[in-house]
Amino acid sequence: MVGAGQLARMTCQAAIGLDIGFRVLAASPTDSAALICADVVTGDYTDSGDLLAFARGCDVVTFDHEHVPGEHLDELEKAAAGQAGAAVRPGPAALRYTQDKLAMRERLGALGVPCPRYAPVADLVGVCARAEEWGWPVVLKAVTGGYDGRGVWVCGSPEEAAAVLAHPVAVFAEEHVAFGAELAALVARSPHGQAAAYPVVQTVQRGGVCHEVLAPAPGLAPGLAFHAQRMALELAAELGVTGLLAVELFATEAGLLVNELAMRPHNSGHWTIEGARTSQFEQHLRAVLDLPLGDPRLAAPQVVMANVFGGGSGGSSPRGSTGASPDIYQRYTHVMAADPGVKVHLYGKQVRPGRKIGHVTVLGDGVAGLRDRAARAASYLATGNEEST
Amino acid sequence: MVGAGQLARMTCQAAIGLDIGFRVLAASPTDSAALICADVVTGDYTDSGDLLAFARGCDVVTFDHEHVPGEHLDELEKAAAGQAGAAVRPGPAALRYTQDKLAMRERLGALGVPCPRYAPVADLVGVCARAEEWGWPVVLKAVTGGYDGRGVWVCGSPEEAAAVLAHPVAVFAEEHVAFGAELAALVARSPHGQAAAYPVVQTVQRGGVCHEVLAPAPGLAPGLAFHAQRMALELAAELGVTGLLAVELFATEAGLLVNELAMRPHNSGHWTIEGARTSQFEQHLRAVLDLPLGDPRLAAPQVVMANVFGGGSGGSSPRGSTGASPDIYQRYTHVMAADPGVKVHLYGKQVRPGRKIGHVTVLGDGVAGLRDRAARAASYLATGNEEST
Repeated sequence: MVGAGQLARMTCQAAIGLDIGFRVLAASPTDSAALICADVVTGDYTDSGDLLAFARGCDVVTFDHEHVPGEHLDELEKAAAGQAGAAVRPGPAALRYTQDKLAMRERLGALGVPCPRYAPVADLVGVCARAEEWGWPVVLKAVTGGYDGRGVWVCGSPEEAAAVLAHPVAVFAEEHVAFGAELAALVARSPHGQAAAYPVVQTVQRGGVCHEVLAPAPGLAPGLAFHAQRMALELAAELGVTGLLAVELFATEAGLLVNELAMRPHNSGHWTIEGARTSQFEQHLRAVLDLPLGDPRLAAPQVVMANVFGGGSGGSSPRGSTGASPDIYQRYTHVMAADPGVKVHLYGKQVRPGRKIGHVTVLGDGVAGLRDRAARAASYLATGNEEST
Repeated sequence: MVGAGQLARMTCQAAIGLDIGFRVLAASPTDSAALICADVVTGDYTDSGDLLAFARGCDVVTFDHEHVPGEHLDELEKAAAGQAGAAVRPGPAALRYTQDKLAMRERLGALGVPCPRYAPVADLVGVCARAEEWGWPVVLKAVTGGYDGRGVWVCGSPEEAAAVLAHPVAVFAEEHVAFGAELAALVARSPHGQAAAYPVVQTVQRGGVCHEVLAPAPGLAPGLAFHAQRMALELAAELGVTGLLAVELFATEAGLLVNELAMRPHNSGHWTIEGARTSQFEQHLRAVLDLPLGDPRLAAPQVVMANVFGGGSGGSSPRGSTGASPDIYQRYTHVMAADPGVKVHLYGKQVRPGRKIGHVTVLGDGVAGLRDRAARAASYLATGNEEST
């Protein structure tokens, strides 16, 4: 797996159970997955030589993020073609639609998949012309390089748009969608075409960053859930995805609109570790290795996942951890004592304000109570306070 | 963790989620846990210098097996006492009762815990005297060094007993109990005295080796289950256990009798990985680190675990695994395709006939159907045939 963040870390855990040899390409030995993986190669994923050296001896190369330059992906694929049984999954042709958001919009448009209205824009005049049609605010998105709220700007005025355009970043414009809820449909597809769909979840975002995931999405009409799953399965097939495809959706009065795509384990699927019969990490491995897929069904009536963000006060990981500090260890103890049913996942990351350092999952009945428990645990781990900041 | 078998391997997986730094002492770099752990020390657990060097810098030392010589455990504990915050858990005083089965019987007798009748025996005359009282067969057990069916001989005649006594192994005699079922009660206890009990399970043994675990034990009267849990909790407190205590029990017409004790993650608890809210591996870590214990309750109405044993035909682990061979990889694919809900765990071990190389777990309703699914998957992984051998 290229990249050694928390997605690679949790994929490594799944690989251990399945006894699949697992190697990560890490930028640094202190990357989240590099801390716990037995087979770590240190290198630069923007360096073609590092990538090729890393991939040598791997049956399948897959990805923790979508930032490997397209031309390097092509080289990787060429190298794999010369190595019996080796493959890059997902392949460059599919990954392109997670790397170039304008290309993604164009492709989805051509497939007839409902999306927010969008338009290439060259300058402020172009943005204002779109705003006349759609109204303010207008969303400006970086064509490449954006993820997790980065590279997305909601502009309420020409002044705000001008400030974004002052950056040397290619952007395009999208209408600002008045949605009722944000949903995510996660599916897996294997090279021989088997596919599996997880229950559709609701994601709760703040500032463009996922804070909470509710599985299954509360109150979602079964017809709409089925529609979202079918759309994700069809997209996975149309785009030739192997591995996971996460489709982020806006639920609007007019129906579902596709917001973003990701072709890797996704934050909206962390709940599956305990909450589904097959975790998204195991499922991604099974899919990219062309093993039969696992049962994606819920393991509890309702599951809530909440992200843990680094608070302002610093601190690090539990006692004995690779970056040990007593600070978060005490919070950890408190959270476990307060709620023996909460599942705590910490990623071994140095704490920086706003950085995802872990997540918590609770399972059971009654979404309101589960959300409260998850929020308390996540907030306490982050800040030492039980209420969310 | 001293020892790097599958118990350490699965404990390592749990440590990753909790972000607990985890180091193993392995006899060889190809030991099950050494293959996947990021912090491996190679050494000999019967060598005091190796043990002390391994333990240096660890907050807590715990164990994958009960074979560390008692005098070395005492040295480890002394060394820990000189290192602020360090500890050996469980401690030597408790571990003694898993190492010396005669001492265990005497201690349990003193505590009034019901056990099979037993007696030290010096020679065949002694065994025959016991047989006159109890009837044949008589069970001879190695005082030390036995585990997993090894060191236990069921002798049907004086000739068979004489053959056992010919070995240079200290043994004692026990009555052969006519039991209705074998049960296991698994509990955790932390240094500050918090304790948690898992649901009591039924174990199905063949030749003294666990083949299947049914959780909860089907048809067990609630009063008897409660009695078994209470007995295990009391024993953990009386013996000063920190970490897990597994109590193997015979259910007889006259009530429950204690068969064996283990103070570590136990084969009878592998079902907890998916089948309980807190896996036994996470629970052991929480207990020995004096973190608050997790919820031990079932995550499904019924859970069945079946061990996978190496077949006679050789073969090894799945593609990409550290000891790759296509043989078991194909079986693996077949099992996953046949039953998407089965959870496969392989330990990365070279296959030898009769050796535990993995386990499978299935969850749901209806114990007969679950047993059938687990047996088919385990049998196919082991031998390439769907029926048990």
